[in-house]
Amino acid sequence: MKALDIVIFGGSGDLSLRKLMPALYFLYGRGEIDEGCRILGLSRGKLDRDAFRAQVLEKLKLYLGADYDAVQAEAFAGLLDYRDLDISDNHSWGKLKLYLSPVGKREIIYYMAVPPTLFGAVCERLNDQELNPDNSRLVVEKPLGEDVSSAEVVNGILSSSFSENRIYRIDHYLGKEAIQNLLALRFSNRLIGAVWNSDHIENIQITVAEKVGVEGRAEYLDHAGILRDMVQNHLIQILSCLVMETPLSLNADDVRDEKVRVVKALRPITSENISQYLVRAQYGPGNDMPGYQAELANSSADTDGSGETFVAIKVMVDNDRWHGVPFYLRTGKRLKSRFAQIIIQFKPTPRNIFNAPQNNRIIINLQPDTAISLDLFMKKMSGDDQGLSHSRHGSDLSMGDDRRIPDAYEKLLGDVIAGDQSYFVRHDEIIASWKWIDGIRKAWDGAALEMHEYAAGSMGPDASDDLLAIAGHKWFEE
Amino acid sequence: MKALDIVIFGGSGDLSLRKLMPALYFLYGRGEIDEGCRILGLSRGKLDRDAFRAQVLEKLKLYLGADYDAVQAEAFAGLLDYRDLDISDNHSWGKLKLYLSPVGKREIIYYMAVPPTLFGAVCERLNDQELNPDNSRLVVEKPLGEDVSSAEVVNGILSSSFSENRIYRIDHYLGKEAIQNLLALRFSNRLIGAVWNSDHIENIQITVAEKVGVEGRAEYLDHAGILRDMVQNHLIQILSCLVMETPLSLNADDVRDEKVRVVKALRPITSENISQYLVRAQYGPGNDMPGYQAELANSSADTDGSGETFVAIKVMVDNDRWHGVPFYLRTGKRLKSRFAQIIIQFKPTPRNIFNAPQNNRIIINLQPDTAISLDLFMKKMSGDDQGLSHSRHGSDLSMGDDRRIPDAYEKLLGDVIAGDQSYFVRHDEIIASWKWIDGIRKAWDGAALEMHEYAAGSMGPDASDDLLAIAGHKWFEE
Repeated sequence: MKALDIVIFGGSGDLSLRKLMPALYFLYGRGEIDEGCRILGLSRGKLDRDAFRAQVLEKLKLYLGADYDAVQAEAFAGLLDYRDLDISDNHSWGKLKLYLSPVGKREIIYYMAVPPTLFGAVCERLNDQELNPDNSRLVVEKPLGEDVSSAEVVNGILSSSFSENRIYRIDHYLGKEAIQNLLALRFSNRLIGAVWNSDHIENIQITVAEKVGVEGRAEYLDHAGILRDMVQNHLIQILSCLVMETPLSLNADDVRDEKVRVVKALRPITSENISQYLVRAQYGPGNDMPGYQAELANSSADTDGSGETFVAIKVMVDNDRWHGVPFYLRTGKRLKSRFAQIIIQFKPTPRNIFNAPQNNRIIINLQPDTAISLDLFMKKMSGDDQGLSHSRHGSDLSMGDDRRIPDAYEKLLGDVIAGDQSYFVRHDEIIASWKWIDGIRKAWDGAALEMHEYAAGSMGPDASDDLLAIAGHKWFEE
Repeated sequence: MKALDIVIFGGSGDLSLRKLMPALYFLYGRGEIDEGCRILGLSRGKLDRDAFRAQVLEKLKLYLGADYDAVQAEAFAGLLDYRDLDISDNHSWGKLKLYLSPVGKREIIYYMAVPPTLFGAVCERLNDQELNPDNSRLVVEKPLGEDVSSAEVVNGILSSSFSENRIYRIDHYLGKEAIQNLLALRFSNRLIGAVWNSDHIENIQITVAEKVGVEGRAEYLDHAGILRDMVQNHLIQILSCLVMETPLSLNADDVRDEKVRVVKALRPITSENISQYLVRAQYGPGNDMPGYQAELANSSADTDGSGETFVAIKVMVDNDRWHGVPFYLRTGKRLKSRFAQIIIQFKPTPRNIFNAPQNNRIIINLQPDTAISLDLFMKKMSGDDQGLSHSRHGSDLSMGDDRRIPDAYEKLLGDVIAGDQSYFVRHDEIIASWKWIDGIRKAWDGAALEMHEYAAGSMGPDASDDLLAIAGHKWFEE
């Protein structure tokens, strides 16, 4: 039994109930946490332990559907406890300290399921109360700042109470099975590793498409824009897993050393070159949906309507391996469908004597389905016409059976418990990616870059296709 | 409608009824031959057309099982005719000439389903009777000689009546779907083509294992030995498809130019080096089966018991692409099971940071199943232990549905009809492979190479494993 306390700030909030509790329930189910573990929910509301347990069980039932097992859930609920917490109130902290005493005996994981504006106050109190012993860890989620300087401020807050090797910055895209498999695919298969470079790859495309509009987040989204909301974290994290060199080992810092190296190698986008490298846009009306500006006007949000809801970027990685290979990133709201997908597009065979109609591809689906497939060509069977047929060598990551694919939070919380930081973002990675992003924002201001419009329910503006067409490329469409 | 006559010498024989008629039936079924085609059986026996048709229908029903369609078979039988033929009898040839008149108006395909000893007489008469116009083709099967000089003699006979571009030498391994797919796999997929060389491939293994012993063929097999019976044709043909350079085009002569080049590049086996490169053996008793010598003794065959029933060869291809890569060939009778398989074994990843337990492989199954698969590694799903899992990306060549995989004869006869010689063996290929084989036979005589023994029902003698162990390799076993 592992003596472990998991303390969730915002324990009765949506993130906790929707994501963290199901993840902990499954981790408990397979023994990664056991009866030696206590899970403490902290929120402002007055709730007793039983009411909290009942609330968690109700939500588990709702979110897990067929995966809900009443007996296991009851046993899991036995680990749960609850305290109300007013951050500014000493008495509250005293109750927490009592719960955790003797502090330092058991491992503690603090999960910040609260807005970033509260990080400072919480960290300060944890430090004041000496609730941050060496065997405690802190888990935080994006957004961590909105540019280099604010990210430095956030980090200052966190690092004043926790050393870097105890801070776990979550980007849930890194917990997705297909992303985790990317490193295994690249580094454990010679067949793949040998062709993973500019000799053989023509371009790589990363698309994270959302179907929703601004919903209730208009104020944040219009202020941040999708470049900061999605590209700075998720898309750059995916990109760095795709392009990193082989790390010295799979140790967390070896992996992150290589990831930060490639983020630093991204070619800067400047006001001189931005028109070749980036397209930004907002959705207009389309497919019976209102446009972005109309949505903002109808909301009570305090916005100026300047945030981009779509961005397509041609990224060049200035190192030897990737010389001349464009990486096309796009993400947007109110697109045709919700999916996240990576396409590795290979160059043609040298002389193509078989007249293969396309090049080889590797297709990595992140959502809604989770799968890695290779597109190869084979001869059609005799008796069919004599051409080539397209043969997709798929690897459904559920291994072909009906097993549930673990949610990203489950994988990542398991890593926090195990003390493995490989799939968490290090401070220098965040700063490196903000530097590149800040440069883009400066460049589009400087160049007064056009804000294109695209129809709601489309795949973005024509300019996004044009960005690829310059090099004779096209966004992959099945 | 294509005006075509298919004339089968040995038309009522086993090969004709068991292989050719089913192949022609299916070709008819999908329109590669139609009512413009006549199929004439020639044999010594007196049969009228209706009796021949009834015989063919009976055998079709027997051999096709569920694929037999009575209506289609009746229609197909309408193309059939029969003449009895005594090769030495002028009257017989007169009847044939009458049937084919006016000679030259329709295309003619002559299929030699008779012993090679009759090739000379038949070709001579076809020539004498002027039954070999420019639009006629000749199809012959192995064995075409038993060494360089006899192969030259056989070829002299054939080429005195037919030019090389009208002679179709069948090696039915070349008609197998998986072999035909090999060229498509290699030359239409950059992912595969890029790693198809000594930089990435550790070794390649070709196994053609038979479960049967000598059966009724003791005299021929003991005289020829399995080196000449299997290696000279089937295994060298498979090998050359594996190692050939990309041909200029898929035209028959471009393909065969490259195949013959690599056969010429096979490192000669001499009496000095043969002990490192070759193991020969005969089966002894085992698994309740008698040994080879006992089988011969119990037969009435005129044999001296000197033929090898198993051979394993380490073949080096002395060109740049394959420098240092051993090709391990083995074939034998009375082995554990009947299968034919090619294994392409890749080198390990450079540093193997994931501790992959094996290297990548491509597995090509020729018989009894027909499939091409890639062995890749993927990460196990979170929640399983954190290692790698082995993931086989298979391509069942039937495309995953229940379609019948065409027999090699069907594919090859279709090619003869279409006039495509790509998958037929050219004279210079045969001579080049005989040269290499003759060298081996001279070498083992010169070195008085040991004849090993292996247990019937095993996978050959220990010496066969030792042959690979020198380089740290092992025969693949699932």
